[in-house]
Amino acid sequence: MNDAVRNKVAELLPAMIACRRDLHKHAEPAWREFRTASLAAGRLRELGYKLTLGADAVAKKAMMGVPDEAFLKEEVKRAVRQGADPSLTAKMDGGLTGFWADLDFDGGPGPRFAVRCDLDCNDVEETDDPGHQPNREGFCSVNRGCMHACGHDGHVAVNLAVAEILAGMKDELRGAVRFIFQPGEEGCRGAAPMVEAGCVRGVDLIAGMHLGFQAGRSGEIVCGAKGFLATTKWDVRIIGKAAHAGAAPQEGKNALLAACAATTNLHAIARHGAGATRVTVGRLEGGQGRNVIPPNAFMALETRGATSELDDYMTRETARVIGAACAMWDCSHEITVMGGTKSGESSPAMVERVAEIARAMPVFTSIVGMKDFGASEDYSHMMTVVQENGGLGVYIQVGVDRKAGHHNSHFDFDESGLAPAAEVLVRLVYSYLRGNPGEKFL
Amino acid sequence: MNDAVRNKVAELLPAMIACRRDLHKHAEPAWREFRTASLAAGRLRELGYKLTLGADAVAKKAMMGVPDEAFLKEEVKRAVRQGADPSLTAKMDGGLTGFWADLDFDGGPGPRFAVRCDLDCNDVEETDDPGHQPNREGFCSVNRGCMHACGHDGHVAVNLAVAEILAGMKDELRGAVRFIFQPGEEGCRGAAPMVEAGCVRGVDLIAGMHLGFQAGRSGEIVCGAKGFLATTKWDVRIIGKAAHAGAAPQEGKNALLAACAATTNLHAIARHGAGATRVTVGRLEGGQGRNVIPPNAFMALETRGATSELDDYMTRETARVIGAACAMWDCSHEITVMGGTKSGESSPAMVERVAEIARAMPVFTSIVGMKDFGASEDYSHMMTVVQENGGLGVYIQVGVDRKAGHHNSHFDFDESGLAPAAEVLVRLVYSYLRGNPGEKFL
Amino acid sequence: MNDAVRNKVAELLPAMIACRRDLHKHAEPAWREFRTASLAAGRLRELGYKLTLGADAVAKKAMMGVPDEAFLKEEVKRAVRQGADPSLTAKMDGGLTGFWADLDFDGGPGPRFAVRCDLDCNDVEETDDPGHQPNREGFCSVNRGCMHACGHDGHVAVNLAVAEILAGMKDELRGAVRFIFQPGEEGCRGAAPMVEAGCVRGVDLIAGMHLGFQAGRSGEIVCGAKGFLATTKWDVRIIGKAAHAGAAPQEGKNALLAACAATTNLHAIARHGAGATRVTVGRLEGGQGRNVIPPNAFMALETRGATSELDDYMTRETARVIGAACAMWDCSHEITVMGGTKSGESSPAMVERVAEIARAMPVFTSIVGMKDFGASEDYSHMMTVVQENGGLGVYIQVGVDRKAGHHNSHFDFDESGLAPAAEVLVRLVYSYLRGNPGEKFL
Amino acid sequence: MNDAVRNKVAELLPAMIACRRDLHKHAEPAWREFRTASLAAGRLRELGYKLTLGADAVAKKAMMGVPDEAFLKEEVKRAVRQGADPSLTAKMDGGLTGFWADLDFDGGPGPRFAVRCDLDCNDVEETDDPGHQPNREGFCSVNRGCMHACGHDGHVAVNLAVAEILAGMKDELRGAVRFIFQPGEEGCRGAAPMVEAGCVRGVDLIAGMHLGFQAGRSGEIVCGAKGFLATTKWDVRIIGKAAHAGAAPQEGKNALLAACAATTNLHAIARHGAGATRVTVGRLEGGQGRNVIPPNAFMALETRGATSELDDYMTRETARVIGAACAMWDCSHEITVMGGTKSGESSPAMVERVAEIARAMPVFTSIVGMKDFGASEDYSHMMTVVQENGGLGVYIQVGVDRKAGHHNSHFDFDESGLAPAAEVLVRLVYSYLRGNPGEKFL
Repeated sequence: MNDAVRNKVAELLPAMIACRRDLHKHAEPAWREFRTASLAAGRLRELGYKLTLGADAVAKKAMMGVPDEAFLKEEVKRAVRQGADPSLTAKMDGGLTGFWADLDFDGGPGPRFAVRCDLDCNDVEETDDPGHQPNREGFCSVNRGCMHACGHDGHVAVNLAVAEILAGMKDELRGAVRFIFQPGEEGCRGAAPMVEAGCVRGVDLIAGMHLGFQAGRSGEIVCGAKGFLATTKWDVRIIGKAAHAGAAPQEGKNALLAACAATTNLHAIARHGAGATRVTVGRLEGGQGRNVIPPNAFMALETRGATSELDDYMTRETARVIGAACAMWDCSHEITVMGGTKSGESSPAMVERVAEIARAMPVFTSIVGMKDFGASEDYSHMMTVVQENGGLGVYIQVGVDRKAGHHNSHFDFDESGLAPAAEVLVRLVYSYLRGNPGEKFL
Repeated sequence: MNDAVRNKVAELLPAMIACRRDLHKHAEPAWREFRTASLAAGRLRELGYKLTLGADAVAKKAMMGVPDEAFLKEEVKRAVRQGADPSLTAKMDGGLTGFWADLDFDGGPGPRFAVRCDLDCNDVEETDDPGHQPNREGFCSVNRGCMHACGHDGHVAVNLAVAEILAGMKDELRGAVRFIFQPGEEGCRGAAPMVEAGCVRGVDLIAGMHLGFQAGRSGEIVCGAKGFLATTKWDVRIIGKAAHAGAAPQEGKNALLAACAATTNLHAIARHGAGATRVTVGRLEGGQGRNVIPPNAFMALETRGATSELDDYMTRETARVIGAACAMWDCSHEITVMGGTKSGESSPAMVERVAEIARAMPVFTSIVGMKDFGASEDYSHMMTVVQENGGLGVYIQVGVDRKAGHHNSHFDFDESGLAPAAEVLVRLVYSYLRGNPGEKFL
Repeated sequence: MNDAVRNKVAELLPAMIACRRDLHKHAEPAWREFRTASLAAGRLRELGYKLTLGADAVAKKAMMGVPDEAFLKEEVKRAVRQGADPSLTAKMDGGLTGFWADLDFDGGPGPRFAVRCDLDCNDVEETDDPGHQPNREGFCSVNRGCMHACGHDGHVAVNLAVAEILAGMKDELRGAVRFIFQPGEEGCRGAAPMVEAGCVRGVDLIAGMHLGFQAGRSGEIVCGAKGFLATTKWDVRIIGKAAHAGAAPQEGKNALLAACAATTNLHAIARHGAGATRVTVGRLEGGQGRNVIPPNAFMALETRGATSELDDYMTRETARVIGAACAMWDCSHEITVMGGTKSGESSPAMVERVAEIARAMPVFTSIVGMKDFGASEDYSHMMTVVQENGGLGVYIQVGVDRKAGHHNSHFDFDESGLAPAAEVLVRLVYSYLRGNPGEKFL
Repeated sequence: MNDAVRNKVAELLPAMIACRRDLHKHAEPAWREFRTASLAAGRLRELGYKLTLGADAVAKKAMMGVPDEAFLKEEVKRAVRQGADPSLTAKMDGGLTGFWADLDFDGGPGPRFAVRCDLDCNDVEETDDPGHQPNREGFCSVNRGCMHACGHDGHVAVNLAVAEILAGMKDELRGAVRFIFQPGEEGCRGAAPMVEAGCVRGVDLIAGMHLGFQAGRSGEIVCGAKGFLATTKWDVRIIGKAAHAGAAPQEGKNALLAACAATTNLHAIARHGAGATRVTVGRLEGGQGRNVIPPNAFMALETRGATSELDDYMTRETARVIGAACAMWDCSHEITVMGGTKSGESSPAMVERVAEIARAMPVFTSIVGMKDFGASEDYSHMMTVVQENGGLGVYIQVGVDRKAGHHNSHFDFDESGLAPAAEVLVRLVYSYLRGNPGEKFL
């Protein structure tokens, strides 16, 4: 099948690029992927996939970090204005933007292979540098403060192409395929409520794919990942007391000084001898008028650990530092859990399968097996549940040339890398679900 | 004249309260006082005053901390929607909301007496506590993040009543009166551009009045103020570099850690042996997504000093601390001067005049002469220029019972205090401009 | 008497300089002034004064910040090695270095006039700059870390000369004089235990004198002081837990990070609208080995306030900040009160008396009356008690040219200033105790 | 040979314990191990080893962090008072406390096997807890601030026993053995100058041994280590300016606030995605008198990295943070490099050899192969040079039960663990140097 799939992927590349650019321009962050999700769902329905949507696909009570209802209603309107299908977005009301799409193959019984794709963009303001390709080519994000700076726009484009190719091989394959489109990867918020709703129930094999990341250049592939950082996401609100900054500063309770003491000292929490840890206050806002002792502050932060135990260490320390910083400035505070995920590790056998496939693709000049991931991905939650149920899972990173690091406002990637990513996924599914198990899978 | 003026003030009290509540509900901060200014200007025109408006009243090039043009245009529309006179707001385009109103008396030549009134509200979010009178009585601010937490709504109400009473005494008085309505007192931004446009040119006497403040209870009056804190207002923008907080935090340049180091250490600048100093970071915003090393931060800060030299000391230290905090985290930064004013002192003779008047008013049970102000007020800029030109100036604080301190989101005051404030101002102008200089002035 | 006293002082100037240099060379800090005190006491006994020493002069239980017994025994030995009288130091065992010396005049009954002098040096390491006069002239401190950087060496020299002159005028005067030599001024530790032992019991008039300070140049005199800063002195010990900094930093409890968070944030405590405040961590020591998470830290700090209430505000905030900083890093701590004094104000009549004397002395070209002191001096404690008992008190600053500010390692002063200081004190005592009350006192 | 060596070790255990306790009582830190080194050297000479001492064994110009000459002279006297051999300490003048001891075996030519032992104690104050065994048994450190809290006392005892046993097997072995006794391991200061002097020239095999550490319990052994943290040791001196803390704090330049800003922010340097990093300010001292703005501060710090590149990242960031903190408070500073070492990895073949030996010793119930070390040891410097010259090296950790973590003031270990440590080393040397290479080595 070698040439056939490569030719098919090449044929679809212009459509993948167009799709990626359209999504890039209309970037949507966690729980607000109404346009992205309805576009993807509509396309899969066209291809013959059966959709599971809305409350059937996302367990509402397990959702974390959801914007308020009124704002989400505005976002649905915005999405429709930007071209979303109103009948599909209607089912996603309240931020239920995750869904999955199933296709049974004609070749008889066989395993169920799930492919997971993330939908959301980052809370990053895209650069207005005229040399930045999205500006030059006119597909810079029109949604202020929202930018695909992690490549998920490309992920959706790739997964739709893979779904199209597999649908065209319906009679060559057995078993079934499921495409899981997950919201809120960036906050590690989307996986848990979809797992709870059943997205990996009955799944035997699962794959997830990321463009770039540790595969930093075109021609590279990292076939599996372990050491996903466990992570916890918190919002912290600090309440102090306002006062006139000139006449009576002593009457205030300075919530901003509490937040600054917390932020600085959080980053100074002792490194752990047992492995990697992280803490980042990603956003801080405090104060009102310039001449008012700040009575309020807000911090959006996250911790990470190479294992769940290490992340627990970080959250324990973080809670203590924040509590003490507020006590120091006589303020009170409240913490809201906004997301989080546990650690995980790809199945070695499936990693080896990916490596064999990659070795047979001339495009890959650097093939790495299992690698420590050193970051968080709530895909690890889905993968771990599949493994606990006796299945296998893998996480693949396909190299693309990049203009800047992930999450940077100048992030961009060479779109020709969409093709090998799609090809690897098609071949991986094919290798497990080809009609005749005895046949060589490449 | 004793009873006449008191009776007249009592008659106008309901109108003063209504005016104050209307302004409270439509609170407008610096350079955005389109509704407040057009309402006051319209009323003064009705009373026979001659207006100096727009670019004639505010020197554009001396304005500091002005919002951008597009936003101001939206604000004009908002003001008109809330009832502002479109023909007057048209002249205030670009934030030129300051104006003055002149009336020549019929009693012949005499001194020109200016009364200065501030128009703007605070950048404070008003409490939603149902026990808060503006909530109970339905005049809580409808402009989000904008609140009259310093009593300027009452100042406008008082000054309009004073203007009305004086207009009614036209033939009893000589010389002239000028009401100066100044925008942007809170940022100490409005006085300088109005002085530059000529608001105190030819002024012999000037008075400014504040409700409450150091006169903390009904029945108190502080007849003069010295030791206005000199002040400087800066906006600081810090530029770092984003990076993925999990995978490669070392690639970032953390602008938020720079801002936190700056904020904490700014407040630790050495106190000065020669007198009071202040520094307040009133607002800080930094970062983008939770999992992104913050590439940006913003601080709105102010310094103060009991003398201009002390404020200079503070700005010098502040610049060094900010520069070093940014260097510490490998960030760059830029500082924009947003406002500022110098120190000042009321004229002792005029303070004594106010005290004599107060002693003759039964409402005042506690009369304080000159007092250290311990806060900033850019009125001191106008007063100092009048004094430098050979005139006299005074700053009066009239006691009102308050629910919370100035600049607090629960700030409110007993509106019955509007009456004595108006009465003092009428009597003070009268005492200097009565037709027959030989007559006892009370 | 004008010329007689001036001539006498001039005659004694070489002895004053020699005395000052000898004391400078053998500088002794709080509770360790064995040599200084025994030298002064011995001289006063020679002059005919009656001594009150040891436990009779210093209430042991009111002593704060006393070094441990063993160390004090070593210090007594050191003092004897450096020339102290062993029989006198024996009475000062345990740090009881304060004493007073009484002389009754022959002119009959009259008021008791106390003159207070401080004995101790600073915990400052004297510069080794060869241009520094004490180095050039060979009287640099031989006691490491101990330096007269505040001029108390000169105070002792002046007071001994005054005592000598007054003893020589025994039959011209009535009433009595008492010289109070107080230890531990620098820590504001010595006044309270001497007052408790009775040093101002029966005292009608009291004077204290400081060289330099606010009288920054030769020819200046500040005749009285008010607004002595109230102050509190604390030692803080922080207890954490050591751990290997490379292998297991997470097992430590970092007492040094607690101390640093405390120190930085203490200096950031809000300035107070009602007057001057201070907080200084004057010394910090923490940690053990370079590769050990620091399990211990120590801070010597002080707060000050323009009034006792303001100092109370500072200690309250200080306690909270320290407690929270320790909680932040999971450490415990203990606070020991080491000293402190309250605010105070010179008696206006006595200030005026000093001014009259100064106006009659040609040396003074700049005479200032009452001035805000802006620093602490536990003399204010003695003065306040005298005033509460119906007496009068004054604090005089006599100008000297200085090489550097007080407490700086380069501090030095022009010794010719010792003469006018002595003359003012003699004349002040004389003016109150001259035999014939009707006679003009100058 | 199995039983013979075990019996011999058992026979020597009481002597090992006595030796360890004697050294524990007289703990000596870096460059001051005069007593420890002369005792060990004397014993080896007795056993027939040939010594290389003083300037022949330690390259003076490569020594870092050496105390001043005068202090070292005092320390030599102290060591002699505590029982050191004066003729040996004479050769160690100036801190040249490292030496090596060679023995050629009689079995003919063969490899040269070096065993490295560290001599120094920690800068830790030993606890006075009466339950602490050294207190109970009377061998608590008599040298204040100096404590064997890392087990090097045990290392010396073990190595002397090993040297004795090997000397007793002279005719069974071929080649040669060298015992390298290294000062200053704690600061990573001793290895470089000994390597430069030639301690590993001509060495084919090298072994180092640590009691405890990652082998946390009796019965455990970790047979090899990789990932030694590269490390850098700096002393930082900050120079500010003193001022009176009450009267004129603004005249000071607060070196202590600079040190606190540096310390807090150093610990907040971004974690690195490529591996473990550390930074620890192990000691900070600043300030003089309580009421003096601190003009001076000192910090002893270290950085570490899992690779030399990571340590370089940390030193680069550290230099910037310190520079900026000093600029923030207008202070200057100077940095002195006090020590440091690079990363390293045990030779896998030699690790496997240790594992085989351990499996044959019943005492070991938990045998771990190569493990990430996660801390620094300048042994890695010696090992790396041996490997670069074509030799093999290994670092072994032998489990002991401990009372508290390494570098803690309560550290103590079960002395019965000295026996298996000695046995492993004897067997390892034996396995490589046994007379008949064909013979099974266990």
